[in-house]
Amino acid sequence: MFGYTNYLQKLIEQLSKLPTIGLKSAERMALHILKSPQQQARALAEAIINAKHNTKKCQECNYFSEAELCPICKDKDSREKVICVVEDPQDVIAIERTGRYKGLYHVLWGKLSPLEDIGPKDLPLNQLLARIKQDKINEIIIATSSSREGETTSLYLKQLITPFGIKVSRIARGIPVGSNIGYIDQATISEAFEGRREVNS
Amino acid sequence: MFGYTNYLQKLIEQLSKLPTIGLKSAERMALHILKSPQQQARALAEAIINAKHNTKKCQECNYFSEAELCPICKDKDSREKVICVVEDPQDVIAIERTGRYKGLYHVLWGKLSPLEDIGPKDLPLNQLLARIKQDKINEIIIATSSSREGETTSLYLKQLITPFGIKVSRIARGIPVGSNIGYIDQATISEAFEGRREVNS
Repeated sequence: MFGYTNYLQKLIEQLSKLPTIGLKSAERMALHILKSPQQQARALAEAIINAKHNTKKCQECNYFSEAELCPICKDKDSREKVICVVEDPQDVIAIERTGRYKGLYHVLWGKLSPLEDIGPKDLPLNQLLARIKQDKINEIIIATSSSREGETTSLYLKQLITPFGIKVSRIARGIPVGSNIGYIDQATISEAFEGRREVNS
Repeated sequence: MFGYTNYLQKLIEQLSKLPTIGLKSAERMALHILKSPQQQARALAEAIINAKHNTKKCQECNYFSEAELCPICKDKDSREKVICVVEDPQDVIAIERTGRYKGLYHVLWGKLSPLEDIGPKDLPLNQLLARIKQDKINEIIIATSSSREGETTSLYLKQLITPFGIKVSRIARGIPVGSNIGYIDQATISEAFEGRREVNS
């Protein structure tokens, strides 16, 4: 097709699986790789393999980690005794980027979703409860998305944590409904943290 | 930085070296890779290595090839005896995509540029002359870019090929299809007037 060679075709197919990369961008990237020095192409391929191979989940918070504990959990003693619960690892990056929040995280890697058959047992909730006790956490900030599933997850968490007698808050509705926290600008995320309110049942 | 792990940071750095990929896109791509199955990350890395490792230059036209001859040169007998001279391999893809041109190509992998110290000896010109004789080529279409260096290269090629007594043409410059004349630069409009053709009913 269009004079593509076989391996060029395959490379374009693989690259176009990446998010926001259409066929045209994939072609441009593939041609760049073919024209760049062997060393540079190898460095890119190795970076992919190394990142995938060496990245696990932190045993405490489930964020990306290369050791048992991620850099944030390793630094636990100098952080506030607050846990922010998020759906996705990229939410941690987005929140850290604001520089506003000084607490810990708990990454659910999902949210309650009856449609996708994801129930409470599929999320690392017992691990969260264990951390609350063990680390004497005094507040949980729920930063799940503002979608219906995110709200459901938030309410479920509130019920689950209430018996522990600690504050449970929800980041403010500054986040546009239906948006993913990972893609929101820093100012909005900061506002949302500022305006958090206690969950009342 | 922002809670990136080491290998994530390295992967983002490598990805952001690709054309049109900024830091934000690189981050999104890297997170996608980390979250995708091991198999998929491996497939991408292998596609990069395989494409780079198995792609050579065609011995006749210098276009990408996985064998001695590229698919176009291999198909030489069913192509017209015309060679289109281009600067870059991606120009071949762009021209093939039109489906309009049925001849052969010659990829220079560059253009004459005194500033970058690229002279006639740095371009595969003898190879082009040999092909003209050997394959009884009856026209050379020069499709180098319309930059100053592209024009210089075009004039040099014209002089070089003239002794062979075959037709040497240059692709037309003018208003791009679908463009509004009001937004086109003066040089292009002048060229478009220069290259005007009689309207035939």
